[in-house]
Amino acid sequence: MSALVTFGETMLRLSPPPGQRLARMGSLSVHVGGAESNVAVAASALGTDAAWLSALPDTDLGERVVHALQGEGVDPLVHWTDDGRVGTYYFERGSDPRRPSVVYDRGGTPIREATPVDLSLDAVRGADCVFTSGITPALSDRAAATAADLLATAREAGVTTAFDVNYRSKLWSPAAARETLVDLFPAVDRLFVAERDARDVLDCEGDSEAIARGLADRHGFGTVVVTRGEHGALAVHEGTCHERAAFETETVDPVGSGDAFVGGFLASRLDGADVPTALDRGTATAALARTTDGDTVQLDAADVDALVVEGEDGDIGR
Amino acid sequence: MSALVTFGETMLRLSPPPGQRLARMGSLSVHVGGAESNVAVAASALGTDAAWLSALPDTDLGERVVHALQGEGVDPLVHWTDDGRVGTYYFERGSDPRRPSVVYDRGGTPIREATPVDLSLDAVRGADCVFTSGITPALSDRAAATAADLLATAREAGVTTAFDVNYRSKLWSPAAARETLVDLFPAVDRLFVAERDARDVLDCEGDSEAIARGLADRHGFGTVVVTRGEHGALAVHEGTCHERAAFETETVDPVGSGDAFVGGFLASRLDGADVPTALDRGTATAALARTTDGDTVQLDAADVDALVVEGEDGDIGR
Amino acid sequence: MSALVTFGETMLRLSPPPGQRLARMGSLSVHVGGAESNVAVAASALGTDAAWLSALPDTDLGERVVHALQGEGVDPLVHWTDDGRVGTYYFERGSDPRRPSVVYDRGGTPIREATPVDLSLDAVRGADCVFTSGITPALSDRAAATAADLLATAREAGVTTAFDVNYRSKLWSPAAARETLVDLFPAVDRLFVAERDARDVLDCEGDSEAIARGLADRHGFGTVVVTRGEHGALAVHEGTCHERAAFETETVDPVGSGDAFVGGFLASRLDGADVPTALDRGTATAALARTTDGDTVQLDAADVDALVVEGEDGDIGR
Amino acid sequence: MSALVTFGETMLRLSPPPGQRLARMGSLSVHVGGAESNVAVAASALGTDAAWLSALPDTDLGERVVHALQGEGVDPLVHWTDDGRVGTYYFERGSDPRRPSVVYDRGGTPIREATPVDLSLDAVRGADCVFTSGITPALSDRAAATAADLLATAREAGVTTAFDVNYRSKLWSPAAARETLVDLFPAVDRLFVAERDARDVLDCEGDSEAIARGLADRHGFGTVVVTRGEHGALAVHEGTCHERAAFETETVDPVGSGDAFVGGFLASRLDGADVPTALDRGTATAALARTTDGDTVQLDAADVDALVVEGEDGDIGR
Amino acid sequence: MSALVTFGETMLRLSPPPGQRLARMGSLSVHVGGAESNVAVAASALGTDAAWLSALPDTDLGERVVHALQGEGVDPLVHWTDDGRVGTYYFERGSDPRRPSVVYDRGGTPIREATPVDLSLDAVRGADCVFTSGITPALSDRAAATAADLLATAREAGVTTAFDVNYRSKLWSPAAARETLVDLFPAVDRLFVAERDARDVLDCEGDSEAIARGLADRHGFGTVVVTRGEHGALAVHEGTCHERAAFETETVDPVGSGDAFVGGFLASRLDGADVPTALDRGTATAALARTTDGDTVQLDAADVDALVVEGEDGDIGR
Amino acid sequence: MSALVTFGETMLRLSPPPGQRLARMGSLSVHVGGAESNVAVAASALGTDAAWLSALPDTDLGERVVHALQGEGVDPLVHWTDDGRVGTYYFERGSDPRRPSVVYDRGGTPIREATPVDLSLDAVRGADCVFTSGITPALSDRAAATAADLLATAREAGVTTAFDVNYRSKLWSPAAARETLVDLFPAVDRLFVAERDARDVLDCEGDSEAIARGLADRHGFGTVVVTRGEHGALAVHEGTCHERAAFETETVDPVGSGDAFVGGFLASRLDGADVPTALDRGTATAALARTTDGDTVQLDAADVDALVVEGEDGDIGR
Repeated sequence: MSALVTFGETMLRLSPPPGQRLARMGSLSVHVGGAESNVAVAASALGTDAAWLSALPDTDLGERVVHALQGEGVDPLVHWTDDGRVGTYYFERGSDPRRPSVVYDRGGTPIREATPVDLSLDAVRGADCVFTSGITPALSDRAAATAADLLATAREAGVTTAFDVNYRSKLWSPAAARETLVDLFPAVDRLFVAERDARDVLDCEGDSEAIARGLADRHGFGTVVVTRGEHGALAVHEGTCHERAAFETETVDPVGSGDAFVGGFLASRLDGADVPTALDRGTATAALARTTDGDTVQLDAADVDALVVEGEDGDIGR
Repeated sequence: MSALVTFGETMLRLSPPPGQRLARMGSLSVHVGGAESNVAVAASALGTDAAWLSALPDTDLGERVVHALQGEGVDPLVHWTDDGRVGTYYFERGSDPRRPSVVYDRGGTPIREATPVDLSLDAVRGADCVFTSGITPALSDRAAATAADLLATAREAGVTTAFDVNYRSKLWSPAAARETLVDLFPAVDRLFVAERDARDVLDCEGDSEAIARGLADRHGFGTVVVTRGEHGALAVHEGTCHERAAFETETVDPVGSGDAFVGGFLASRLDGADVPTALDRGTATAALARTTDGDTVQLDAADVDALVVEGEDGDIGR
Repeated sequence: MSALVTFGETMLRLSPPPGQRLARMGSLSVHVGGAESNVAVAASALGTDAAWLSALPDTDLGERVVHALQGEGVDPLVHWTDDGRVGTYYFERGSDPRRPSVVYDRGGTPIREATPVDLSLDAVRGADCVFTSGITPALSDRAAATAADLLATAREAGVTTAFDVNYRSKLWSPAAARETLVDLFPAVDRLFVAERDARDVLDCEGDSEAIARGLADRHGFGTVVVTRGEHGALAVHEGTCHERAAFETETVDPVGSGDAFVGGFLASRLDGADVPTALDRGTATAALARTTDGDTVQLDAADVDALVVEGEDGDIGR
Repeated sequence: MSALVTFGETMLRLSPPPGQRLARMGSLSVHVGGAESNVAVAASALGTDAAWLSALPDTDLGERVVHALQGEGVDPLVHWTDDGRVGTYYFERGSDPRRPSVVYDRGGTPIREATPVDLSLDAVRGADCVFTSGITPALSDRAAATAADLLATAREAGVTTAFDVNYRSKLWSPAAARETLVDLFPAVDRLFVAERDARDVLDCEGDSEAIARGLADRHGFGTVVVTRGEHGALAVHEGTCHERAAFETETVDPVGSGDAFVGGFLASRLDGADVPTALDRGTATAALARTTDGDTVQLDAADVDALVVEGEDGDIGR
Repeated sequence: MSALVTFGETMLRLSPPPGQRLARMGSLSVHVGGAESNVAVAASALGTDAAWLSALPDTDLGERVVHALQGEGVDPLVHWTDDGRVGTYYFERGSDPRRPSVVYDRGGTPIREATPVDLSLDAVRGADCVFTSGITPALSDRAAATAADLLATAREAGVTTAFDVNYRSKLWSPAAARETLVDLFPAVDRLFVAERDARDVLDCEGDSEAIARGLADRHGFGTVVVTRGEHGALAVHEGTCHERAAFETETVDPVGSGDAFVGGFLASRLDGADVPTALDRGTATAALARTTDGDTVQLDAADVDALVVEGEDGDIGR
Repeated sequence: MSALVTFGETMLRLSPPPGQRLARMGSLSVHVGGAESNVAVAASALGTDAAWLSALPDTDLGERVVHALQGEGVDPLVHWTDDGRVGTYYFERGSDPRRPSVVYDRGGTPIREATPVDLSLDAVRGADCVFTSGITPALSDRAAATAADLLATAREAGVTTAFDVNYRSKLWSPAAARETLVDLFPAVDRLFVAERDARDVLDCEGDSEAIARGLADRHGFGTVVVTRGEHGALAVHEGTCHERAAFETETVDPVGSGDAFVGGFLASRLDGADVPTALDRGTATAALARTTDGDTVQLDAADVDALVVEGEDGDIGR
């Protein structure tokens, strides 16, 4: 049984080399990414036994996704289907003043049709923590209902639940998101939300702390973590507020940094760390995630702990 | 006005390097391919003014397709849409005894919804030859109706029409194909068909010549070309049968070789060549197409003519 | 007929990967570049119908140049020759404090012998704007005479003429340049000049505005645009001075940025934009040009307009 | 518990691109290989639950090995050490008449010091089959003793044992190999041996069948499989002899083909297949292994079964 | 002092990847090649002290040539010039039935102006053997005169002279070549000539032996070697005829194979080997040269001797 | 005879591409590096005749090292051995806040066993300057003794000796280093030491100047150069202190920058430059070394002198 079980869609990410745009691309590097599997990979990298629940078509492309996650030590609990496609997205790196650009091609994926019956509820019930994000309910009504079922199943089994708002404007409107998410919140113990999403989607006001306290009060979360990009993160846990600055990073690949934060935070909590330590480690995991290619981290617990302890100063050990 | 106008779907082709399979791929080379645009590119390479009619979503990926075809000298007459995706397919090179493998991901493309109103009928009417293949009607009923309309429009305007059967078992059954194609045939002047498709889809019997003569008689085609892979090709034109052996090739990329044949044949006919010469040049174009990467040819008329004249013997000129 | 017609030499650009110097290079990426074709590509990217007049030897290398420009939507009106070579230049990226380095190998190209008879004067007469730069007359006396003829032909036909000083010290001395250019200026409506060239070659004095006003007065230009690299650009048009700051850029490839500015400016003017808007769009085009590989832009009008409107702040849309 | 447990050394394989020799190499592709982990990967690809026992230094390079095997679905049961290095070998592809070339750099690896205490004997006892090869005892006396212990432990627990002779002349002499191997044989149920090794190392005589029967008689093996490269393989099982021809292959990478055979054979037997079927599937697995890069297979059971059924004839399915 | 001194032009060779043609090339690999430096590299690889005399412009590209030859152990005795360019040639690999293609861009190189004064006559006088080929006199009258001077200087100093006819139809006509070469022959001791060149340029008739004997008689060569591509080579030395078959090769890169033969032959003779042994080693060197990228060999004497001894049969030593 | 002779171990450096970590690497670029050969390459690049003394196993990997150094103009005076391996190290580029990482795999190399008898003492005696670094005595007691012998031999022959402390914590402790180095110092004329090593290993105190003066006094060095990374360098020579700021660099590859400094300094001194000029040129060489891939410099004297004269301001010359 895995300590952390996540549920969500995972896609192939296709990226042209730096300096080449999608409209003229000649080659693509292939990575595997999805918010919930990214979280599982980050947690696994920090030593947590992690599994990922999803649905994939039984093709070479579906197999490609599974090989990647297995390689990172995540247990893929996949519902294989005869129909449907593997979601893909094209990611073009930015270079100031040109912004990064994403073309999603994620329609028609089998997770949109997956019901709880298709998924391992035993894994959910046997976990210490179950995680999904706001992307999942945005995919389809069926996916939203399944996500709700999994969170409820976890709750009933006494399993901690965690949720990242992860608003995607290309999938739904703020109003639609708010309506669906608010219904899910009663089953959630730990909420992660970007400050901007809190304002734009959840109608929060005030500074980060006010946002976190307000959400905790309104929805009864045990922990609310508000992420603020380069301005770090803040957690309100059982009434106390903890803050943590971000590291300055020379970014190689920005995608998946937020998921790395969540994975680092949850792994640390599962490991018995207190909230300030989990913030530290989540922040370090997120920073390191930005320094390597791909949506998933390339690191281990020793890298994260060294960064937490030594900070940004250090040297090549030789 | 272009001399040759083709109509059909064009996709992004994504291929891992030789020796790497889709299920473990780390990088992909990007090419642009579709039977009808491949034909246009081959004809353009031989000096024919060629245009391609299609529909694409107005995204960077749609633009990628257009840049590629423009670069080859083909005029892209595109109906740009707000919705839909660019079809993609993954092509894995084979190595004996492992066969090449294709994973199609071509659903949801706008050409499936395109009506004659969306397309340049003026280009059709102004052409010397209009071409489409059996892939187009296989995409959707709407696409089949539009293909029929374009062929009828060409006929009415006195434009020669050409059609390649191009059966794709992943798109429809032989029976469904037969039913649809037979309805289209009255509007077709020149038919191209692989011997295997003639047997499996069109229920032909006998040797290649019998097949060609039978089809010409049954459907009133002016020319029927039966292609036989490494065994060459055969044309029945106004009652006379012409044969041509294939070249031995060291194959770099097998995809698009049949389309190169059609493009080379049609370009030669448009240029005033007789059928035996068109067979020679089509065969040479197809052989050269196998020696370069991608679905579209990398050659010019001089390359084709040199191969026709000198055959397989030659040397590095220095 | 194309709205913009440019005339000039285009070369193959060969560049080793970053971190590798020419003296040890193991591989080269191939791009196509030349000031005047770069301007045509940028204008085409913004939606202007653009053509490029030049001469090339009828070899695979000449064909390589044509495929590249066609792919970008530019109509190559090439005088093909039996003799001569394709100019090449080797570009080595810099890394502070090592400067970028260029080795030109541009002798013996057929444009040096091209006469107006070899070129499409109809395209010149049918254009809305004709453009060349100071590189062309620097190539040979014959090229200088031909450039003068084309500008005169345009003038007579009532076509707007534009010229970028583009001084190249490896081709001629400031004195030789000044003497030749001053003779061309009476046929020029719109002048583009780098502030440094204005001082070093045209003997201008004072600040940018004084330079622009002085040149307009002295030579009767309708518009003078003075470019100042990272300090932006300034235009004096019909007596009024307009300024525009540059964007901060994370530069991937600096080559062709000035040409992108000219292309963006001219395309906007041809499109009916006023001078301040043309300055904005030219500046944005130049900034985006620095963020992608190669001498020619990889962008479209939407990219430019988004940057003009949103400025440097934005996010990955997802 | 895994059905198949293998024990042996796994190395990083570093290979220059085709056409480049080690003495001038500029880049290397990285693969992970070792006879026993290759067998585990092949068995896992065919659907067998497989684990691999070994020792590795706790470095990024050791981690590299583990990520690769995990990605292929193999459970790495690693004894992590503070000292020692990861074995590496350099593999240079051949091109007739130049032979492939290998430079081993495999000294100082921790498996040479590993004792049974360091390894999971529970995994051995819980397996259905335990496998190692003649490379392991060749590494050190300690490794030979540990291999003997593991085979004895398996035997006591009623677990089937399998062994591939895999003679390596760079590690020991035929005489030394024979002396050690003959001591191990009493604990082995299934023996795999290349015909050449049988002659050179085990002093066998006669044709393949005579060799297999002789070995079975002399050492009491339940099954003896004699592999003959391009001449296929032959098995004597409970007194009956079965033969199987090899497939003709267009070889991309010859390394690991023999291990793929063993993995395919053992997986099939564990799956309940009879010996002739296991020979068929082993042979097909070996043939496919030669068509992809790296020491480990890139295939699944469906690929193997399709090849067994359809043989070498087939086509691109589209 | 080097035992072997060669004199000739060396160029940068630029090659697109296999499957990509020059007219669409996106990248180029860079090699250094020239008949005479190729011979020096091959001889050096076999253990001969070798130097190369030439002229190069003092640019990064000239330096690139020198680094390459130095790396292969050849001593570059370069006359550095302020003017002129480095010759380049573009080489496109063939794939049947498409032939390899070469685009030369070798005009304007300083060796065309080099006089004996520019070159190290001491190196010539101190050598055991001096070599040049028919490409050198084809470059310019000045180069022809310089080549004649160097051969005469060698002769006077008692140094053996060797010459490879190496006819290049893109540089001169057979008649022009014959006239010039026949004037050089009196100063030549050892002649290498392809059978085809002997017929087409030197008007020889009869079989290979007749050709060799005829040339030896007519021009007084001590040794005449006639090369016959895949049919091997034949030498007439002091009245005796020796033959040697070629190896079958899986060719990676055909360029420079003939030069490798010459280098292998001359190195062996300098080493004291008799003519049959030199033929064996030259043939083996040529065969190995075809199996690696680039114009120059990647091998050492042990590779050559192993191939001579073991022939085409062998295995990966492990 | 070479003016500069260095002695030390040289390794293969294997580096994954930027953004890819060792634990997931798929490819490696190959460079050759070692402090003492890096110094020789830098000096050679500036025009000094340089040789390198070392021992290597007689394998393709040993040959790889030699080809690289030869290519850079360094004369490799190698003691070839039958046993032992080529040292390797894996270098992973950093990206803030992730630090660069090095995994050494340098055990078992033949230089650890090399005695003065194995090395060319004639080269040492015939040099103008002999150099080694603190890495050499750290490798083994035998290497330490041999280094001492070489320095003593140089001293006796009146050859200047130079030494860089180059402390490596992965090879020995500060105490062990101090004890050994202090014994070597009496034979050293010119000492190079990083300020940090001076403090940590040599127990120096005070500012850089105090350190340099203290070392000069205590050990009788004619010159002491203290390097301070981005804070530049300082030399005390015959009682006078000279300082030099570092250049700001956009670092592509930090490895070998210190060695480039030493090579630039020594080459300048050998060339007759005074100490301030040598500091300037060493600093410029070090800065340029950081802008190119690999441990060894890619530059020539003109690059260094241009940077010294023009400083950080300059432009693309065109």
